[in-house]
Amino acid sequence: MAVLDDVLARIDADRDAALERLFAFLRIESISTDPAYAGACREAAEWLAKDLQSIGFADAAPHATHLHPVVSGRAGGRSDRRVLFYGHYDVQPVDPLEEWTAPPFAPRIAELPDGRKVITGRGSSDDKGQVMTFVEACRAWQAVTGSLPLGVTMLVEGAEESGSQGLPEFLAAQKQALKADVVLVCDTGMWDADTPAVTTSLRGMVYEEVIVRCADRDLHSGLYGGAARNPIHVLSRIIADLHDADGRITLPGFYDGVPETPPEVLEQWKALGLTEEVYLGPLGLRHSAGEKGRLLIEQIQSRPTCDVNGIVGGYTGVGAKTVIPAQASAKVSFRLVGDQDPEAIATAFQAFVRERIPADCSVSFVHHKGSRAIRLPFDMPDLAAVTGALEEEWGRKAVTVGGGGSIPVVGDFKSVLGLDTLMVGFALDDDRIHSPNEKYDLRSFHKGVRSWARILAALAG
Amino acid sequence: MAVLDDVLARIDADRDAALERLFAFLRIESISTDPAYAGACREAAEWLAKDLQSIGFADAAPHATHLHPVVSGRAGGRSDRRVLFYGHYDVQPVDPLEEWTAPPFAPRIAELPDGRKVITGRGSSDDKGQVMTFVEACRAWQAVTGSLPLGVTMLVEGAEESGSQGLPEFLAAQKQALKADVVLVCDTGMWDADTPAVTTSLRGMVYEEVIVRCADRDLHSGLYGGAARNPIHVLSRIIADLHDADGRITLPGFYDGVPETPPEVLEQWKALGLTEEVYLGPLGLRHSAGEKGRLLIEQIQSRPTCDVNGIVGGYTGVGAKTVIPAQASAKVSFRLVGDQDPEAIATAFQAFVRERIPADCSVSFVHHKGSRAIRLPFDMPDLAAVTGALEEEWGRKAVTVGGGGSIPVVGDFKSVLGLDTLMVGFALDDDRIHSPNEKYDLRSFHKGVRSWARILAALAG
Repeated sequence: MAVLDDVLARIDADRDAALERLFAFLRIESISTDPAYAGACREAAEWLAKDLQSIGFADAAPHATHLHPVVSGRAGGRSDRRVLFYGHYDVQPVDPLEEWTAPPFAPRIAELPDGRKVITGRGSSDDKGQVMTFVEACRAWQAVTGSLPLGVTMLVEGAEESGSQGLPEFLAAQKQALKADVVLVCDTGMWDADTPAVTTSLRGMVYEEVIVRCADRDLHSGLYGGAARNPIHVLSRIIADLHDADGRITLPGFYDGVPETPPEVLEQWKALGLTEEVYLGPLGLRHSAGEKGRLLIEQIQSRPTCDVNGIVGGYTGVGAKTVIPAQASAKVSFRLVGDQDPEAIATAFQAFVRERIPADCSVSFVHHKGSRAIRLPFDMPDLAAVTGALEEEWGRKAVTVGGGGSIPVVGDFKSVLGLDTLMVGFALDDDRIHSPNEKYDLRSFHKGVRSWARILAALAG
Repeated sequence: MAVLDDVLARIDADRDAALERLFAFLRIESISTDPAYAGACREAAEWLAKDLQSIGFADAAPHATHLHPVVSGRAGGRSDRRVLFYGHYDVQPVDPLEEWTAPPFAPRIAELPDGRKVITGRGSSDDKGQVMTFVEACRAWQAVTGSLPLGVTMLVEGAEESGSQGLPEFLAAQKQALKADVVLVCDTGMWDADTPAVTTSLRGMVYEEVIVRCADRDLHSGLYGGAARNPIHVLSRIIADLHDADGRITLPGFYDGVPETPPEVLEQWKALGLTEEVYLGPLGLRHSAGEKGRLLIEQIQSRPTCDVNGIVGGYTGVGAKTVIPAQASAKVSFRLVGDQDPEAIATAFQAFVRERIPADCSVSFVHHKGSRAIRLPFDMPDLAAVTGALEEEWGRKAVTVGGGGSIPVVGDFKSVLGLDTLMVGFALDDDRIHSPNEKYDLRSFHKGVRSWARILAALAG
């Protein structure tokens, strides 16, 4: 592949200029959650559209949504195949500002104590730095060959940190224009600093709020303690009942549709040697709390979970107050895998709770949006093409991993556009995304660009 | 007792004037918890001291504390015996003001739908109306006989609704001046509108705040759900474990020192026929939640209890957030009876919690003030004198009951002054103390004054 070698050489030669472009992008304070930065969001969208126009995306432009604009544009390629690339130009707020050791919107190169060179600044990793790895790969292909190996449609939104508001409507309206063979998303991470990864599954979600009501008013525990039902006790019992002593979730039917990971994938995962010390140690924990008999990596990627994300009832201020509250509430979420059905689980959960509500108490639920888990077929040809390209760049087999969290837009690509998504990214666990002193390794950026250059060639078929 | 008859006749004749005095007292907005009303508190103290001076308490005066003044004064009597009377002139705040059907500080006589005449206004029952039943009884004795049947020391504080701040210090400083044979407190209620009651026991208290910490920061449940220990789960399990299926508290040693109620008292209680419908029905509850096999009246008066008064952890705002919180906390209180030892129970509770904290999590406690239960000897002579006097006034045997709550000052009378307390009051369950539209039955007020006139004679010995 003499052409690919030329493209990679061009990327190497263009490193400093690529960094300058990224820095210009990072200087724009495109915080999507704060209306005060709406102008900056528009500026970032315009900056990106202009840059895309300069590398063959002739129609690239910001398109208004009810929040911030979506940048989209199309470029043709030598192959009939087409990928849809997704990323976001918006960034998280920067508070607490005083914890930043350098201004968040004045990007620079810094050196970590271990010698690694990193790009610092808000958005350097999430997601401007990652978006630019893909843009720079396209730029190099255009510069060397005058076109791209395959058709590319860009879709870079400005409201990812605000729940992707407006994006599903945009997808639905632009369904025809966004037609492609597969989606590429660059918003995930490496396995470690030397091992590339493709995220092939995301857990789904059921999120229910439970409100238990007993007496019709708050009571004085001196007068009523011992006689009046306490909703905190009722709720605590329900929460305690949700797991058995082995960490399994006790909802009837909960594990229906949960697949076992194929032995060969499990072997691959075992070889990664993810220990409690490595994963939990930095958080001050030593012992995994999940299902007994499962690898830690299974617990966080391929097994369903249940967590109470919030609970409140009674007096929570300073000091002592002897109240038996009228109500107590909790937010309970389930992470789903495989073919678990969010609606069936929400229904089973509500029944489980109702069975435990005393006769003269009541319960109500607030049902938040559920989503199914997403899982690519392990034998998908495009997946093999991508992992092969990554292995060539990094000299190490790429790992296929499950993402513990949900990326709702990936569900939208499937449900609205009918497309599978390959998630490839070069972030590292210590990038401090959403926190002060966000960074992106210089190596992630440079080898990320090279990785995409290889992936584009591999996917062209 | 021709003299007592004269005193009672005088009380009957003086009814309207007594009401006028109470109304004047009620018009003073002596809200102790709000600094804006400090002047009104002083005014109420001065009004009361002046009134006491006019009926033989020559040295009656407000005494400064670090919050509002305590009014005290002494009057001699024909007997060598002396009682210390305790009450409070401060009142609860009035919000929500819009729920009052008449201005809270413009007392008047109203008629309830069932024909009962009531005095309305903040403090009409708690505690100005009750205090004035005792003051008017003294006034009548002074008017008819020129003195009191026995020595009386008045002690009326202005910070009861603010936790009696400053009172323990006042008691300690005035220990000699406050010497008496027994304390009378008028801050409790009747059994029902026709049955007088003496409160002879108060439950004690242990109040502990528990803070469970797991990871050293809040975690994203997508990344860590299934592996990271969730402190809400740990805390819920502890709370669920505190009671068994029969409603008994499972702390080892918890029931040490809990006495069985004497069969004759139990018979008396059974005869009262306190049903779930009567006691819990008005709150929207139908079933008692306490220990199985115990009368409802036992559950609320003579049995120890455990209630979680507050719990909080994780995200409690509107909507869904997928956090595994770093910590969760609960406020847990125990009501004690008999000889239960608050310190032993606090220690047992902390051990119970620690046993349930996973190896890599931690727990800390905030220990709030504990108090022992208080119980008068059932064969105390002064108790027989009081119940006898009440029976003469009401034509019905007075009930000796246990108070479910704690009245800390009663513990202070015992520990600081070495005195037992007889709690007699004429409030009714529907007086709405601490709520809008507080009232005091006209019959409670008038027959309350007559009751105290009789009690003073009976206690003189």
